[in-house]
Amino acid sequence: MPELDLNSSADLVSALADGNRRALARTISHVENNTKLAQPLLTTLYPQAGHAHLVGITGSPGTGKSTLVNQVAREYRRRDLSVGIVAVDPTSPFSGGALLGDRVRMRDLAGDPGIFIRSMATRGNLGGLAQAGADVVMVLDAAGFDRVIVETVGVGQSEVEIASTAHTTVVVEAPGFGDEVQAIKAGILEIADIFAVNKADREGVERTVMVLQMMLNLGSPDRQQIMHHGRMLPVDWPEPDFDSHVWTPPILETIATKNQGTESLVDAIEEHQSYLKQSGHLELRDRLRAATELRMILRDALLQRLLRQLSKEELTSLVNAVAQRKIDPYSAVQKLLDAHTHSS
Amino acid sequence: MPELDLNSSADLVSALADGNRRALARTISHVENNTKLAQPLLTTLYPQAGHAHLVGITGSPGTGKSTLVNQVAREYRRRDLSVGIVAVDPTSPFSGGALLGDRVRMRDLAGDPGIFIRSMATRGNLGGLAQAGADVVMVLDAAGFDRVIVETVGVGQSEVEIASTAHTTVVVEAPGFGDEVQAIKAGILEIADIFAVNKADREGVERTVMVLQMMLNLGSPDRQQIMHHGRMLPVDWPEPDFDSHVWTPPILETIATKNQGTESLVDAIEEHQSYLKQSGHLELRDRLRAATELRMILRDALLQRLLRQLSKEELTSLVNAVAQRKIDPYSAVQKLLDAHTHSS
Repeated sequence: MPELDLNSSADLVSALADGNRRALARTISHVENNTKLAQPLLTTLYPQAGHAHLVGITGSPGTGKSTLVNQVAREYRRRDLSVGIVAVDPTSPFSGGALLGDRVRMRDLAGDPGIFIRSMATRGNLGGLAQAGADVVMVLDAAGFDRVIVETVGVGQSEVEIASTAHTTVVVEAPGFGDEVQAIKAGILEIADIFAVNKADREGVERTVMVLQMMLNLGSPDRQQIMHHGRMLPVDWPEPDFDSHVWTPPILETIATKNQGTESLVDAIEEHQSYLKQSGHLELRDRLRAATELRMILRDALLQRLLRQLSKEELTSLVNAVAQRKIDPYSAVQKLLDAHTHSS
Repeated sequence: MPELDLNSSADLVSALADGNRRALARTISHVENNTKLAQPLLTTLYPQAGHAHLVGITGSPGTGKSTLVNQVAREYRRRDLSVGIVAVDPTSPFSGGALLGDRVRMRDLAGDPGIFIRSMATRGNLGGLAQAGADVVMVLDAAGFDRVIVETVGVGQSEVEIASTAHTTVVVEAPGFGDEVQAIKAGILEIADIFAVNKADREGVERTVMVLQMMLNLGSPDRQQIMHHGRMLPVDWPEPDFDSHVWTPPILETIATKNQGTESLVDAIEEHQSYLKQSGHLELRDRLRAATELRMILRDALLQRLLRQLSKEELTSLVNAVAQRKIDPYSAVQKLLDAHTHSS
């Protein structure tokens, strides 16, 4: 058997197909660190992806969502499905934010070859988190995992965006503690395909479920509509069959620490997957994700291209002029565009 | 007295200078909704800003930071300083996330002409939150407020970014509750100029203070260094006097609900302001903010400019090709750039 060259794109891709975990870890590192191999790897792997069902799991710190992700992964393993996990949550034990107990809970996943966990460092990665997250999800998909779970904190804008590009988005809530009530965050309701009210053995669980139910009954703007408004490109969208297939987000109670309710939660995720396929929504969500990614990548590529044309002196003097309030940043940008781009 | 035309840029600007609150609210609306008046308003107001001290206050949901913001604002009023508040926190009572008790606490600020509160809706504003937040802060600054406070959730990437562009960033923590430990988030330590351990009458406060102290003693990458790496433009930076002036983030205990510790917190913010001025860091932070804003605005302007050149058909077929995995999004972007931009 020839030796694996971890810095060869071809070697990595073929080892990935054989289920080689070292190759997988290294491929993700190349992608995350944007090395010279990142682009060839992404270009080669992208057509091989598209088989995994993508599950976003998001919720506030303190809702116990990492433990829930852990249990969901175990349940999938019992169903003989392989699971990739991407944690972009700075408070997650998967990404090093939490303390010993959580790490121990996580460790029992680590020996299973049907599970691969990757945490994304948010530090120093400002602004690029969404795209890096999407790339890592794609690599796990191409590597053949049946389900890919993305865990994010459901209070950050970028984090909610990442979760909402999944096929199925699970929003985790928990009953309030003491005088605090974990309010239902604006913007979170709209992206939820499934609600999990975790820590359901705590006081106040009925109230949390009731509030969620009330908010669902009030109705919320359609998720697709929001995605169109928020960050979409001007594109013609396929018309899914809205009328005959309507999905009402179920509200499920779970106690992740006791592994209660996990089976029903995984059932619901699988049901949602069937719904997406039958209604045509799966295709729509794939297009929404493609449009979101195109937009992000295009924006950054255009910026990098322009920056290459500018001298450090020119930029410095413009930054100084803005800092000293001699010119506003919008007019400064207009000045740059007029001087350095040719098309109107 | 001539009647105020709320849709005239000149009228708004002069009414703003007279302290007219209706004009202020309307100006902010124009900016937030990006109406036709937004650009002329921003261009006119920008040179008038630069006098306010900008304070970012960030922390997880449940740390009680909204109540703390409320108390800090009252303390500034006792010192005869006017305060503008921008809440970009979906869980904040200022932006409608929290329940009745909080709203009542907030209401007693509302009658004071020396205070102006504006909440930013995150919904539907995906991706543009950071820039919109910066614009609203600038308007409050130009309107003459002595201090402008930005309240954000310290777990989201965009939200942490917004808080970190302030002159002084206060990170709010709270003692852990039950089996949860509010872990110190990665990336949060580096942006803190001041720590407030709120709810200091709860059990575990000594532990929280101790953990923070330990992490500070371990040392952390310099904030400026992180900002350089994360999202900066290639610019020459002024060299502040690092050696003779070193700021060690103080760790203060507060009980916002009982208004304990607020005075010391405001003292610390004011001391930090003096430190920034004497050390040359104030100028550096203003340049960092200018560079951050230029970068954001430039990126979006370039995207919009290119999108105007593309037909809906061309974009649709490209999105479909990516969604169907016939091409990866990076290659698709390269194709667009090759076809539609002239410079290399």
